[in-house]
Amino acid sequence: MKNLLPQGVALQGERGIAFVIAGPSGVGKSSVISALLSRDPKLTFSVSATTRPRRPEEVHGRDYYFVSEAEFDRLIAEGALLEWTVYQGHRYGTPKSEVIDRLKRGLDVVLNVEVRGAKAIRTANLGFPVVLIFLVPPSWEELVRRVRRRGTESEEALAERLRIAREELQHIPEFDYLVVNDDLEEAVARVEAIIRAERMRIVQCA
Amino acid sequence: MKNLLPQGVALQGERGIAFVIAGPSGVGKSSVISALLSRDPKLTFSVSATTRPRRPEEVHGRDYYFVSEAEFDRLIAEGALLEWTVYQGHRYGTPKSEVIDRLKRGLDVVLNVEVRGAKAIRTANLGFPVVLIFLVPPSWEELVRRVRRRGTESEEALAERLRIAREELQHIPEFDYLVVNDDLEEAVARVEAIIRAERMRIVQCA
Repeated sequence: MKNLLPQGVALQGERGIAFVIAGPSGVGKSSVISALLSRDPKLTFSVSATTRPRRPEEVHGRDYYFVSEAEFDRLIAEGALLEWTVYQGHRYGTPKSEVIDRLKRGLDVVLNVEVRGAKAIRTANLGFPVVLIFLVPPSWEELVRRVRRRGTESEEALAERLRIAREELQHIPEFDYLVVNDDLEEAVARVEAIIRAERMRIVQCA
Repeated sequence: MKNLLPQGVALQGERGIAFVIAGPSGVGKSSVISALLSRDPKLTFSVSATTRPRRPEEVHGRDYYFVSEAEFDRLIAEGALLEWTVYQGHRYGTPKSEVIDRLKRGLDVVLNVEVRGAKAIRTANLGFPVVLIFLVPPSWEELVRRVRRRGTESEEALAERLRIAREELQHIPEFDYLVVNDDLEEAVARVEAIIRAERMRIVQCA
């Protein structure tokens, strides 16, 4: 196929693409991302840094880099973060090194980013395409159920998560795609269709 | 999901989308389109008008509207065509009525359009999204084989088709997506991924 493309034209998928997955707490971002990574060897996960406490099932360096407030301060000071945001009193950030190195090696990177930090990945001008995907539950009622089911927090923390979720939905227009997570398998297939399509996109190259 | 979207935001797939499939002669556009239509009830086919002779396997009103030169002149004069082009001495055009009515009814429309006419579908400002998909064979050698296999034409006509194909590849940068047709099933799955992704695209609405 290569010899059929005119000079200066390429497929977007010939280089690395950053796929940002965001959405309200409890929508199932981690489950969708795990399934994506297990099926597509070109996809790699960008591990975020956070100051929030580790949950029992989480692993440092796999799910997040769990760092102290002082360490997070240092990451910011060193310019080591592409973006960072505060969520429920804890800080979350995207280490540059997790993203740029892999994109340069031609790998695609999946990022699990707070809704308010997603747009910053695009405006950071990575020099690579950025695709912003917003994951939503099938309904508001279902979101409430999912946040409750997690059950690791006080009633006040749950109410706060829901208040923030309402606010996060207002950011949907900043995103490229909306994916409904009514069923995990279906949601994964939807994101896979987006990834597949974006790789077939025709782009101008230098 | 509906109640989760902010005011003024919608999914592109809530309205009709025009998917234009173009590519050099012999690449397998008709086979890909037939398979797409048989699997997706929201997709409908826009039948083009042409002055070229009908091939034995073709059906008037299904594959094309086979019209006389005078009838084609009349379609142009009436402003009934979205675009038209000349290919190997025959004219091909897209009747407006085939496209607009269905898009207004919320159906997606697949168009099999000559490469040089594809961009005109977008610039016609239908008031609906237009997605331009360029279908290529896996290699130039394979294209030559496929055009020969069809075998309905003289050597001069074949040579002319190949010369035109070379020129058509130069139009790839005008398109949104490039799909390789190495295997029919795979090519159909690729176009389906594009259709699926485009329907999940977030758009502003009035």
